[in-house]
Amino acid sequence: MIYQILHKLDQIMHIETAKAHCDIPCGIYDPIIAQIAALTTVRMIDLMKEFEGKNAERNMEYLNAMSRYVTVKEEHAERTKSEVRVIWGDYLKAQHLEKYPDTHALVHKIMQLGSKVRQTTDREQATQLVEAVNEFAQIFWETKGIATKRAKAPYAPALELVYPVL
Amino acid sequence: MIYQILHKLDQIMHIETAKAHCDIPCGIYDPIIAQIAALTTVRMIDLMKEFEGKNAERNMEYLNAMSRYVTVKEEHAERTKSEVRVIWGDYLKAQHLEKYPDTHALVHKIMQLGSKVRQTTDREQATQLVEAVNEFAQIFWETKGIATKRAKAPYAPALELVYPVL
Amino acid sequence: MIYQILHKLDQIMHIETAKAHCDIPCGIYDPIIAQIAALTTVRMIDLMKEFEGKNAERNMEYLNAMSRYVTVKEEHAERTKSEVRVIWGDYLKAQHLEKYPDTHALVHKIMQLGSKVRQTTDREQATQLVEAVNEFAQIFWETKGIATKRAKAPYAPALELVYPVL
Amino acid sequence: MIYQILHKLDQIMHIETAKAHCDIPCGIYDPIIAQIAALTTVRMIDLMKEFEGKNAERNMEYLNAMSRYVTVKEEHAERTKSEVRVIWGDYLKAQHLEKYPDTHALVHKIMQLGSKVRQTTDREQATQLVEAVNEFAQIFWETKGIATKRAKAPYAPALELVYPVL
Amino acid sequence: MIYQILHKLDQIMHIETAKAHCDIPCGIYDPIIAQIAALTTVRMIDLMKEFEGKNAERNMEYLNAMSRYVTVKEEHAERTKSEVRVIWGDYLKAQHLEKYPDTHALVHKIMQLGSKVRQTTDREQATQLVEAVNEFAQIFWETKGIATKRAKAPYAPALELVYPVL
Amino acid sequence: MIYQILHKLDQIMHIETAKAHCDIPCGIYDPIIAQIAALTTVRMIDLMKEFEGKNAERNMEYLNAMSRYVTVKEEHAERTKSEVRVIWGDYLKAQHLEKYPDTHALVHKIMQLGSKVRQTTDREQATQLVEAVNEFAQIFWETKGIATKRAKAPYAPALELVYPVL
Repeated sequence: MIYQILHKLDQIMHIETAKAHCDIPCGIYDPIIAQIAALTTVRMIDLMKEFEGKNAERNMEYLNAMSRYVTVKEEHAERTKSEVRVIWGDYLKAQHLEKYPDTHALVHKIMQLGSKVRQTTDREQATQLVEAVNEFAQIFWETKGIATKRAKAPYAPALELVYPVL
Repeated sequence: MIYQILHKLDQIMHIETAKAHCDIPCGIYDPIIAQIAALTTVRMIDLMKEFEGKNAERNMEYLNAMSRYVTVKEEHAERTKSEVRVIWGDYLKAQHLEKYPDTHALVHKIMQLGSKVRQTTDREQATQLVEAVNEFAQIFWETKGIATKRAKAPYAPALELVYPVL
Repeated sequence: MIYQILHKLDQIMHIETAKAHCDIPCGIYDPIIAQIAALTTVRMIDLMKEFEGKNAERNMEYLNAMSRYVTVKEEHAERTKSEVRVIWGDYLKAQHLEKYPDTHALVHKIMQLGSKVRQTTDREQATQLVEAVNEFAQIFWETKGIATKRAKAPYAPALELVYPVL
Repeated sequence: MIYQILHKLDQIMHIETAKAHCDIPCGIYDPIIAQIAALTTVRMIDLMKEFEGKNAERNMEYLNAMSRYVTVKEEHAERTKSEVRVIWGDYLKAQHLEKYPDTHALVHKIMQLGSKVRQTTDREQATQLVEAVNEFAQIFWETKGIATKRAKAPYAPALELVYPVL
Repeated sequence: MIYQILHKLDQIMHIETAKAHCDIPCGIYDPIIAQIAALTTVRMIDLMKEFEGKNAERNMEYLNAMSRYVTVKEEHAERTKSEVRVIWGDYLKAQHLEKYPDTHALVHKIMQLGSKVRQTTDREQATQLVEAVNEFAQIFWETKGIATKRAKAPYAPALELVYPVL
Repeated sequence: MIYQILHKLDQIMHIETAKAHCDIPCGIYDPIIAQIAALTTVRMIDLMKEFEGKNAERNMEYLNAMSRYVTVKEEHAERTKSEVRVIWGDYLKAQHLEKYPDTHALVHKIMQLGSKVRQTTDREQATQLVEAVNEFAQIFWETKGIATKRAKAPYAPALELVYPVL
């Protein structure tokens, strides 16, 4: 609560700086797209496990379902990486990086986790990816002077995501 | 035969209305692309069954062939949906929808069948998709005042498609 | 406020139905991606107007900037349509459509607005697209028994979007 | 007429050979997709000329429309080339090439025309592309023992296309 | 060595012709992209064999890894074909084809090998694809009057590639 | 020369470490694809300037050529960024980053330059992009223990690229 009030104050006082960030070439950046994509990779691994448990036979139905889950997992791990890269490369400037010096390492970690999620069906890696992207979203909203909260996503696997307080 | 003559008459008399449909932003709409794509999903299911019957072993050759069939099935089910959506959203106007009030429901059904064809390897769903797209093609050509005929496609699985009489 | 309480009650009482919607093939549907994309088309038109006002000369700088804005507008109008189509075709079932019988017409309208936004640089069409997608988001969240609110998007052009209350 | 009868005879007598071409890996080849794409490039050049005539001012509306036409022209010239390449590379085998020894040169010409259509707004090049693809379609259907006819396409610019007689 | 000197001489004497090839619409053609892509298909087959040997169970881990290898193999076989087609269709003109009359047949063979590499997991086909693309690269650099050498690629599977001497 | 000998020695002595980098999930990384893409952005700016100089009229021919150059510039700036991101995220591990601690900042700079090259037609930015990617290539080959050299690219605009000594 105090955190949110402080953020609101921060938001009011930094409005000018915040506007300065918004150079004309900037588009509309929102980490929620990366967060949903990361969450989807967890969901796919859950579906794969559930389906594997139910299907004893390794037939074309098995292959059809499984290879579709793999493809969706691939695409969303990739989208996670791609969306984070765009915000990092296009939005984050020297002044942000000074204030958040670990951002480079965090983004590199997201790239590595994204690849792990593609290479394996390890749910632990996928939830770590969600958490790392949450951390990135937290930094992003802070640079804009917008308070955040954590809430369960309104769809399976219902992990907590970082949302801006609007 | 009588049907075609009636259509020709219809075509002559509606020429002005027909021209009105063709607003400058309209591209070249032809449902045949969606029909070929739908047919391809049936073909892929046939190939999967044939290949499954021949290959006892679940090795890399099996996986290579099967996952390629799944991918092609995915892409063509998606293309079917995408092409139908474009004609529905960009070409069909209020005056067509009044005359063919069930088009919305038909398009929604095509979307659902397209997804079923992706989720399963059920040939019955895929042939229903072909038929639903045929129905859509029939409406499309009627709105243009062009007679249609049904003929077997000149490639496996040789299902009947609706073609314009040119 | 009363609206939200009613929704919460609705949410509690419909939890079983809500779960029933979530068939295993369903992915993670979230209209926010379509809403952000629609908002982006408004932003691009604003940037085009601003840039046009500043640049008297029709040189390669003008063309470089303008054709990039057009491309981004194209892509996001298309994404808006594509994301709405997926939720409509894959998530919305007979029981939803009975309760919201105008959804077909709304989705068709979104397709038409999406095309208008591509064909023109008319800001009015683009804001109508945002509003139509908001309306769609409203229906979507209601079918899931999740209350919604309207809030200004935290980036230019800061139009109001429909958000779920999480 | 005689041509068609001869073709029918040819078709009956070559049915076994025709089947031999259809190896299991072959998909569903149909040059109509390339033909429609080529036709679309002509249409785009027509729309560009029409629009240019109407718009004196070189403003954002001009640029929006024009760069969309260019993009559609690009995509369809590319699709023409891509579809022809697939049929040429995947379907046409040694026995066809012996019978139609100029096919390599024809395909190379289609690639060059396709590029010309991208690089210019020359309608003559685009109609030559349509004609070259018609020639390719003619060969394709002959290898399958299916008679062809020429008919005006049922949409602007209504050039003649080669169609199989089904 | 003598070969390189001859080439250098050839290069000096043909500089004018070489420049004539470089029409303004030409981009930057380099067969190395096709060569790397072809090499990657060999690598994927090696990884599939290695992984198959290690994994007895046909579970979701197996499917995840295998279907990713297949996808990468597909994409790179396709890129090989696509890159070669572009150089062949956009760069090679009548004067080159006269001097290298077998180029059409070579390109057609690359298309066929590329498809074989997609359809099978046969390493022999993939290495033949690499070699055919090397042959194409050789012709390409010769048309530009640039000497070539063969060297092992600096990454697995370390097959020999044709490189320009820069 | 001494540099190359030192590198060769370094290469011999580090062969074991070098192999350790090559984890089974690693593909075939080669910065040349990013380098060619960066070079292409310079070429496009040159072509735009040349074309602008020759065309007084702002007609559809102007727009056709210019918007194609812009699109190719966009795509290749994006490919540059994407290829560098993949090598950085998938290949470069903790041990490399310790040895080359400025890599994060260099990659971030490449992302920013890549965006500048998209947003402007400033040749200076594009040549800086080429140079930054060269620097990245230099680091990459060093981590593999492979010596490099600088040579003019064998196509316009013939800027120097970093090549491995094979």
